[in-house]
Amino acid sequence: MSELMIKSCNELTRRELISGAGKFAVGTAVVLAGGTTLFNQANAKGRQPFPWPYKKVDPEKAAAIAYETWYKDYCAYATISGILVPLRESVGEPYSSLPLEAFRWGHGGGVGWGMTCGTLMGAGMAAGFIAGKDGEKIINDVIAWYAGTLLPIYKPAKPKATFKNVNMSDSPLCHISVGKWMKKEDVKFFSPERRERCARLSADVAVKTIELLSLWADGKYKPSYGNQAKMYQTTTQNNCTDCHGKNNPPMPGT
Amino acid sequence: MSELMIKSCNELTRRELISGAGKFAVGTAVVLAGGTTLFNQANAKGRQPFPWPYKKVDPEKAAAIAYETWYKDYCAYATISGILVPLRESVGEPYSSLPLEAFRWGHGGGVGWGMTCGTLMGAGMAAGFIAGKDGEKIINDVIAWYAGTLLPIYKPAKPKATFKNVNMSDSPLCHISVGKWMKKEDVKFFSPERRERCARLSADVAVKTIELLSLWADGKYKPSYGNQAKMYQTTTQNNCTDCHGKNNPPMPGT
Repeated sequence: MSELMIKSCNELTRRELISGAGKFAVGTAVVLAGGTTLFNQANAKGRQPFPWPYKKVDPEKAAAIAYETWYKDYCAYATISGILVPLRESVGEPYSSLPLEAFRWGHGGGVGWGMTCGTLMGAGMAAGFIAGKDGEKIINDVIAWYAGTLLPIYKPAKPKATFKNVNMSDSPLCHISVGKWMKKEDVKFFSPERRERCARLSADVAVKTIELLSLWADGKYKPSYGNQAKMYQTTTQNNCTDCHGKNNPPMPGT
Repeated sequence: MSELMIKSCNELTRRELISGAGKFAVGTAVVLAGGTTLFNQANAKGRQPFPWPYKKVDPEKAAAIAYETWYKDYCAYATISGILVPLRESVGEPYSSLPLEAFRWGHGGGVGWGMTCGTLMGAGMAAGFIAGKDGEKIINDVIAWYAGTLLPIYKPAKPKATFKNVNMSDSPLCHISVGKWMKKEDVKFFSPERRERCARLSADVAVKTIELLSLWADGKYKPSYGNQAKMYQTTTQNNCTDCHGKNNPPMPGT
């Protein structure tokens, strides 16, 4: 299977689009003032083919972009940038026209509400654009991996801060993931250590997502985790006793 | 302030782009086979101006689209479709080229993991594309409203199912929001009543988000809710005792 893929039910390959052999009307390729080539691929409804073309991303490059981008605009923006900025370079459009700033709001589990870890929001969106419905299986596996892995793993070449602890969150919720780690590290939310932990974790989630996307691009990806709603007969995380029953945490400060 | 806006630090109005008066290179407008006009606006880096142009969306239209779309592909896809599909018609590009299917994975709080309610994920992304950093204040207010409001409100013209109860979730998490409602209604997750509740709730969140976006477009929007992380010194929801302390819920089935 080619690295450069457009997968969908009514798919056209990028090659077919460029050569004009496809059945849909093709936009145009414009060389802009800066020398950038802009592909505008559109079908009869004015839409880009979906999912978008994927070329394997170098995990080390993605990790470095995600880590540095965290310090610009936090986790969701960092992780989607780690995955998609390299594709702006290797594939171009439609990635070049997608404003990654629009994903910034996912920070702190959604503007600080501690819901879905922003790294997973960024990764889920990237997988959605690249792999469509297959991306759902991929992000499902990434979420299960996130909850069951000692994180962060990434060691930046030039760390902006240092800390001692890694932790397994048992939950993909920002509040629980960062809260358990902060307790273990004994630091506050607005601390250099916590910021560094979340920057490195953004790199980790970008790398894991790329690992699965690249297996998928090679036709070798096999989903490993089941359907959460079908397993539990409701939507839920797996850390039930963190909230239900007698072993839940006391109110902070009590 | 014009309804049709592109707001950013280095902004160009759509009018300037179309007239060629702007300082960036402009793509091209292509009339496709189907008669659709495709605007390709790009700056020297091949990017669309950001945020994207906004024309006020009719809340009734958005609600109907969100409600019907839920039954196709669930909550995140439904809510973003309610807000952005009308903009495909009234504005065109770049909305026409954004594959809304990529947002499908947000269903069930993220492929069934019960995290951020998918309706809020869809609304947050729409607000991000339309209002950039202002969109963060808007989704922050939508989240606070969601947690503190008896939902659902929307009454479809032709309901696909009926139910008795509305509920205030006190939380924007899918697991807690849908869980409390299911307990009150005494129905299972895989039931017509629960599906109808989530479809109507998708309409409600689309309508609330449009209400704030339209105030913002008129320059009349004032954020009403504070910064969650600064208030609590961590990322969190407000329903602390749902998990912390002695009043938390027992394990289901015990």
